[in-house]
Amino acid sequence: MQKKILLINRPEGTPDHNDFKVVEAEIDQPSDGEVLIRTIYISVDPYLRGRMNEGKSYVEPFQLNEVITSGVIGQIEDSKSDRFSKGDVVLGSLGWQEYSIAKEDTIRKIDHNQAPASAYLSVLGMTGLTAYFGLLDIGKPKEGETVVVSGAAGAVGSVVGQIAKIKGARVVGIAGSNEKTSYLKDQLGFDAVINYKTQNVPDALKEACPDGVDVYFENVGGEIGDAVLPLLNNFARIPVCGAISSYNNETEDKGPRVQGHLIKTSSLMQGFTVGNYSSRFGEGAKELAGWLSEGKIQYEETVTEGFDHTIDAFLDLFKGKNLGKALVKVGDINE
Amino acid sequence: MQKKILLINRPEGTPDHNDFKVVEAEIDQPSDGEVLIRTIYISVDPYLRGRMNEGKSYVEPFQLNEVITSGVIGQIEDSKSDRFSKGDVVLGSLGWQEYSIAKEDTIRKIDHNQAPASAYLSVLGMTGLTAYFGLLDIGKPKEGETVVVSGAAGAVGSVVGQIAKIKGARVVGIAGSNEKTSYLKDQLGFDAVINYKTQNVPDALKEACPDGVDVYFENVGGEIGDAVLPLLNNFARIPVCGAISSYNNETEDKGPRVQGHLIKTSSLMQGFTVGNYSSRFGEGAKELAGWLSEGKIQYEETVTEGFDHTIDAFLDLFKGKNLGKALVKVGDINE
Repeated sequence: MQKKILLINRPEGTPDHNDFKVVEAEIDQPSDGEVLIRTIYISVDPYLRGRMNEGKSYVEPFQLNEVITSGVIGQIEDSKSDRFSKGDVVLGSLGWQEYSIAKEDTIRKIDHNQAPASAYLSVLGMTGLTAYFGLLDIGKPKEGETVVVSGAAGAVGSVVGQIAKIKGARVVGIAGSNEKTSYLKDQLGFDAVINYKTQNVPDALKEACPDGVDVYFENVGGEIGDAVLPLLNNFARIPVCGAISSYNNETEDKGPRVQGHLIKTSSLMQGFTVGNYSSRFGEGAKELAGWLSEGKIQYEETVTEGFDHTIDAFLDLFKGKNLGKALVKVGDINE
Repeated sequence: MQKKILLINRPEGTPDHNDFKVVEAEIDQPSDGEVLIRTIYISVDPYLRGRMNEGKSYVEPFQLNEVITSGVIGQIEDSKSDRFSKGDVVLGSLGWQEYSIAKEDTIRKIDHNQAPASAYLSVLGMTGLTAYFGLLDIGKPKEGETVVVSGAAGAVGSVVGQIAKIKGARVVGIAGSNEKTSYLKDQLGFDAVINYKTQNVPDALKEACPDGVDVYFENVGGEIGDAVLPLLNNFARIPVCGAISSYNNETEDKGPRVQGHLIKTSSLMQGFTVGNYSSRFGEGAKELAGWLSEGKIQYEETVTEGFDHTIDAFLDLFKGKNLGKALVKVGDINE
């Protein structure tokens, strides 16, 4: 027997344990072309909150009373596929459950000797690629420009800032604790940092960006995003990646309209999701792996131990608790 | 002697006559390389409101107690330039005054036999080029897509809609009177029209755009812009050209934040000003002139007669009175 986590309510506002149910279920057997995977790591991500709502978004909503899915690293326990053998470590979009059945063409093998397996869920995976394409394809930072990133200590934001540094930009990070801002400044070499919980963001931003803002990588939305608008330079670029501050809003998310700022500065705001760049994932993953092996990019993980704490790990995202990528470690890789 | 119009106050909210002063002044004589121009047409434009405020925008603010400037068509009365002769009809950014002195490199000759002189201030001038580059360079409408344009009966909007039709798009126009919507539908061939003063815009838009919105050409901002956001299709484009609904706001312009909508649909909002495309004006003007001569583009003008009514013509812009380009006719061309 194994455990699975189902979504049983569409959360109103901030999700809580009552929206989920842990059930016991049989471990299925793979059919031809399928494999049985034992879960090693589960990725918990802010964007999953959107999938818990009904209605159109860039990914389909989760169905009620079905298992939740996200990025998962696992190890093959049984294979009815020519492409995979028992013991292979694989990545896929799989259920929040201890064992999964997957079709061979929905997963891919990872080399956990080249980088730790968990890195394929973060810096070498979706969050790293999100940072890579959002920053370079939309933000296009140039040497000497000022790049501001919100959610800067998160899995996406911390990579955004480091890539911007590689490109020669001046990087300003906004995060929610002194632990996080110290990490960004001392460990990752950000040029300036702002703790939005203790500082006045509009004032601190003005001080941190004496030459204005050329790129604003938007991870949080809300009042932090508002505060950047008056500082935009001409032809500024705003990759809009996330708006975690509003994901749990029950009323309409209102703020200063952006039109006037965009017109005055000929600036661009572009929403995106990493899936838009799926045809170029190879290019991004290769460059990220290179920077990682050269020590030009570092990454942090906030790892919650044990399948039984998966829901807690997800709920903690909205309390701003994680530094870097939030993961649940469900089991060990058998060598 | 001649008359000039000075800005004497920075308007608070909607401008009125007290913000301007008409003064009498000498008619100056041209120096070497200069010409004396008699004003024929003065262009009055919503964007001039922004220049009446203090502080940074994409063009410098007007100085207090100085003459206001905008696009002007005039005829040369006296020339100290090899490039221009008495009688030439020219276009330049000149003062709201009956006679101007201009340096030879700040004006250009127009051929008022090829198209009426006033067309060089509208469809063949800045407003036509604004429509052309904003729609084609940012909006990029494809055949069969739905293009929504607000301020649709204005000088920019009416050209936007017609170019979108030329490109094979389905065009929905939003305007503020039945006279305007009838003009758009019956005269210009828009596929659907909405009178925002008598209809519920969100409901009417939903009905007019059963396949969603691919391009929204933003001229007005405010609640009309808000109403488009929930209808955006994936990879929608929003050229942000104007926000006339908020130009006279005294309090901060607030509305639903756009981030969530942009992320869900991977949509783009890009502010612009026609000056960004100055190196390509020739290309745009040539194509517009071609469409005009083939009868594929029509244009309307709201002409106010007499220099003494220039301020009224400007103030009327904010009452939504103009159909097409608003102009003041100051004098006649002497043949």
